[in-house]
Amino acid sequence: MIKEISGGVCAAQGFRAAGVHCGVKEGGSPDKNDLALILSDKECTAAGVYTLNRVKAAPIYVTMDHLEDGVAWGIVANSGNANACCPLSHENAELMCQSAAQATGREAGDFVVCSTGVIGQTLNIDAIRAGMPAVAAALSPDGSDAAATAIMTTDTVKKEIAVSFPLAGKEVRIGAIAKGSGMIHPNMGTMLAFLTTDCAITHEMLEDALREVTAKTFNRVTVDGDTSTNDTCVVLANGTAGNPLIEWKDEDYETFQSALLYICRHLSRAIAGDGEGASRLITCKMSGARSEESAERLAKAVVGSALVKAAMFGSDANWGRVLCAMGYSKAPFRPEHVDISFTSAAGSILVCQQGDGLAFDEALAKKILSQNEIVIAVDLHEGEDVAECWGCDLTYDYVKINGDYRT
Amino acid sequence: MIKEISGGVCAAQGFRAAGVHCGVKEGGSPDKNDLALILSDKECTAAGVYTLNRVKAAPIYVTMDHLEDGVAWGIVANSGNANACCPLSHENAELMCQSAAQATGREAGDFVVCSTGVIGQTLNIDAIRAGMPAVAAALSPDGSDAAATAIMTTDTVKKEIAVSFPLAGKEVRIGAIAKGSGMIHPNMGTMLAFLTTDCAITHEMLEDALREVTAKTFNRVTVDGDTSTNDTCVVLANGTAGNPLIEWKDEDYETFQSALLYICRHLSRAIAGDGEGASRLITCKMSGARSEESAERLAKAVVGSALVKAAMFGSDANWGRVLCAMGYSKAPFRPEHVDISFTSAAGSILVCQQGDGLAFDEALAKKILSQNEIVIAVDLHEGEDVAECWGCDLTYDYVKINGDYRT
Repeated sequence: MIKEISGGVCAAQGFRAAGVHCGVKEGGSPDKNDLALILSDKECTAAGVYTLNRVKAAPIYVTMDHLEDGVAWGIVANSGNANACCPLSHENAELMCQSAAQATGREAGDFVVCSTGVIGQTLNIDAIRAGMPAVAAALSPDGSDAAATAIMTTDTVKKEIAVSFPLAGKEVRIGAIAKGSGMIHPNMGTMLAFLTTDCAITHEMLEDALREVTAKTFNRVTVDGDTSTNDTCVVLANGTAGNPLIEWKDEDYETFQSALLYICRHLSRAIAGDGEGASRLITCKMSGARSEESAERLAKAVVGSALVKAAMFGSDANWGRVLCAMGYSKAPFRPEHVDISFTSAAGSILVCQQGDGLAFDEALAKKILSQNEIVIAVDLHEGEDVAECWGCDLTYDYVKINGDYRT
Repeated sequence: MIKEISGGVCAAQGFRAAGVHCGVKEGGSPDKNDLALILSDKECTAAGVYTLNRVKAAPIYVTMDHLEDGVAWGIVANSGNANACCPLSHENAELMCQSAAQATGREAGDFVVCSTGVIGQTLNIDAIRAGMPAVAAALSPDGSDAAATAIMTTDTVKKEIAVSFPLAGKEVRIGAIAKGSGMIHPNMGTMLAFLTTDCAITHEMLEDALREVTAKTFNRVTVDGDTSTNDTCVVLANGTAGNPLIEWKDEDYETFQSALLYICRHLSRAIAGDGEGASRLITCKMSGARSEESAERLAKAVVGSALVKAAMFGSDANWGRVLCAMGYSKAPFRPEHVDISFTSAAGSILVCQQGDGLAFDEALAKKILSQNEIVIAVDLHEGEDVAECWGCDLTYDYVKINGDYRT
């Protein structure tokens, strides 16, 4: 039903994108794109979710303001500077929108604005304004790639996906790009994720779908426990697919939401797997829980534990740290019922049963934990609810990247 | 008034201690003590605080049981195995106490029991029982050193302190040993801390004093955010000093508590500074807060942030991460009022004023942040309350130590 297609954030009909280098960061490589623009051919219904960090970057307040009417035409974003906690941050976020509006013949209030990079240094707005005509001129249905690279910071891989699915007799598309590698512990959004769709859907339904999906995807990722000041996930829907407008939580809504979930789950896993310095994607599957909420809390504690993450780096089947992390998660469970196993492409091994350690084949465990994708499966044997959370291992490179990121 | 003295956990009159190697951990060095015993010449009032981790090691339940009557004679502890989440853990914790009782002519219920080391492997109780006569025979007023080394795991330095202070015309002493390096994010106790005093004090007053002091000391330390399954802090008071019994929260209680605070603050800083792989002790002083509780929460988020910790390792004055961590702490404050400075033996530098970055001397900042002890001072400008929390930097060695701790 849902099938992956190419085109990224431009896969949905009526969207164009571009990315260029404008020189936001002094001494940055001229080959690194740092200014992205995404534009719809027509007005879009828009919804966003943002960081719950009390310290929010100025672009978030400006975006909230611009989306108050529930509509937008495009997104402008830069990497190299977070435009947070610095003089003129609010003014410069507004100036970015004005500049994008001038270059595209729209209004400043039609734009979502996002920034990502170092906190506390005044944004080089002159570079952004100077680069805006070029990025606007480069807008193209093939521009997803360039836009995706323009929002990368310490990311090592581009995060981009699109799907197509039938809806009430029409073919509907959702496309997206995202970035995120460090300072990743999203709470109501992730670092940056931009989604576009040609689905016809009301603002209210789009908001609900996005909120429900991010709760099960981006908000279940952690790289380092640090919730960013800039997390933003925005979806624009321009209705070009021609499907009957989704106004209620009917079957069409479910279909659309499933596709949205597919997209956000893919991006969440990509962000976790590309965590700063990461060598492995870690998934914790918590099953047999009394509630989805407690399953999520337990799984998030496991993938967030520095000790679990370091053990995964060392391919060490130290399941005691898994149980320990569950224990301080503040979610209720009975340790004496818990089974824990490690699974990867190299096999599966049960290491703890009913809360006690089992004798197991250390060589096999090492082999399983040496793969790029590891699943830590925990069965609580208390109920029917499940949740998955994603993270990565803690490596020398995480320390290296973050020991000297700013300078 | 309060002066530091030698003697560690045996500095208080009437306490003896010892530490020996008995071979808890297969393949462990024969030079590494792994069994500690502390004994009072007379019955003690006793109080303990323990981890709030839902997964508690068996020795904690046994200790809680033995201290239900509020009295104890001694403490038996091993390193090399946490005796947590493994078959026979409860039985083996009881056997440790029985063995200590036999070797000293006391009852099993007179002993506090603690274990520290790897989780999930059955304790080698035979080695402990075989070593008990030797450790009992070695009990001595000079034994603090040997006991302190016997509870070390990844610790690189021994944590030991004693003080003497006048109380109602008598000289009273408090001594202590502690251990803690990784899995340190105590909540109602720390990894292991054993305190002894010759003060005469009721069980109720001793409990209150310990609870109030640990809240301001051990519970304000974090190394890696992982609250251990074994955290225990116990104080034994044998009354040998001959001071009038402390029964009320009077001036004598305050004097005793000040000395207890001195001891626990010293040990907390020692544990943070000796965090696994740490190269620097980080203190966050949060001042100008509306309440001590919110000051503590904010300061703990700062010293707990992986990104702040990595920046400190790299001597990078990345104060944006400080403000970001405060933002996700869930404590209320106004970012636009916040001042941040970094201080060390090399000087002090203001880097953020009223929430915005200042231009500052990068070379001086680097010099300040290259010292072994760094203070991150934050003024919230909202009230009169303050709190200090302690942590350490995140280094390659933390990853190395924890990538392969178990095997």
